[in-house]
Amino acid sequence: MKALMDRILAEGRNLGGGILKVDGFINHQVDTVLMDGCGRELAERFARVEATKVLTAEISGIAPALTTARHLEVPVVYARKTRPITMPDQVFLTTAPSHTKGRTVDLIVSPEYLARGERVLIIDDFLATGQTILGLARLAAAAGSEVVGVGVVIEKTFEGGREALGRLEVPVEALARVIDMSGGRITLDE
Amino acid sequence: MKALMDRILAEGRNLGGGILKVDGFINHQVDTVLMDGCGRELAERFARVEATKVLTAEISGIAPALTTARHLEVPVVYARKTRPITMPDQVFLTTAPSHTKGRTVDLIVSPEYLARGERVLIIDDFLATGQTILGLARLAAAAGSEVVGVGVVIEKTFEGGREALGRLEVPVEALARVIDMSGGRITLDE
Repeated sequence: MKALMDRILAEGRNLGGGILKVDGFINHQVDTVLMDGCGRELAERFARVEATKVLTAEISGIAPALTTARHLEVPVVYARKTRPITMPDQVFLTTAPSHTKGRTVDLIVSPEYLARGERVLIIDDFLATGQTILGLARLAAAAGSEVVGVGVVIEKTFEGGREALGRLEVPVEALARVIDMSGGRITLDE
Repeated sequence: MKALMDRILAEGRNLGGGILKVDGFINHQVDTVLMDGCGRELAERFARVEATKVLTAEISGIAPALTTARHLEVPVVYARKTRPITMPDQVFLTTAPSHTKGRTVDLIVSPEYLARGERVLIIDDFLATGQTILGLARLAAAAGSEVVGVGVVIEKTFEGGREALGRLEVPVEALARVIDMSGGRITLDE
């Protein structure tokens, strides 16, 4: 997606250690027109998988998941990292190592909103090691719903996420693919 | 906003202690068509304040803030509750008591994305005591930007938030106003 790739090259910052800072338009501050375009593009790419629900993880997955779900006209569920007091006692919970947080986080979904037979499209901002997305897929499996695709805004191809997601046997789409961040560079797969 | 009020009456649950559960369409699971409508309505109500940016607090403020900002065609910034590694060392930070979490939370914004002269519209999912919104207003003031309005999806009128926001001297809009939750009821201001 050209508008996104241009923006990453213009404003993305390579902080070293594989950390790509896109806080000015994807995380923290969101360019809402660009993010709506990302959602439209992801919705088009997954038009044929007939998703009934979009699933993501708070916090930075919410914006792309919401815009994708809006274009698909389906609800979005975001897995919580802490259990709010409004959630039932019995929940689906899994843990996933967080690359950027340097620790393991909980991913929690209420059984009220993830049901048997649901066709789940997983959307997130980044695909790096794929561990968060595999965690979301475990939640979907626990609920008896079927993962039908995985879409991300930015993939870092050198962290093995796409290979890790292979076991899901579903289409994986990325709107921009960062293929190299060595030596302070940001190189995209054009 | 009738579609929202109908939904609250049909699916909202009074959990006692002033807790209104709307996890099926606003928090946790988001009805994306309804939320887009909420954003459109808030954008219309604030069309004349000429906001240059929407400010909210993660997590559940993100959905209404994103849709409002999309309709206004301005960026949205969500205050973080923990400082991510991509954020500079020097930040704007304030604390606010969280009603639903039963503790004080940090609200953190990077000076990169909140600037002097910015016209800030604060959007959140709930107006209860108003403490989160006042915290966001303090962050805006620290940045030298001006708060031009406050919009929320649901106001609980009996928790004093609107009175607390009086000191901001800006228009405050709520799409649905819950005026009574005593005795297990959910009574809206029609």
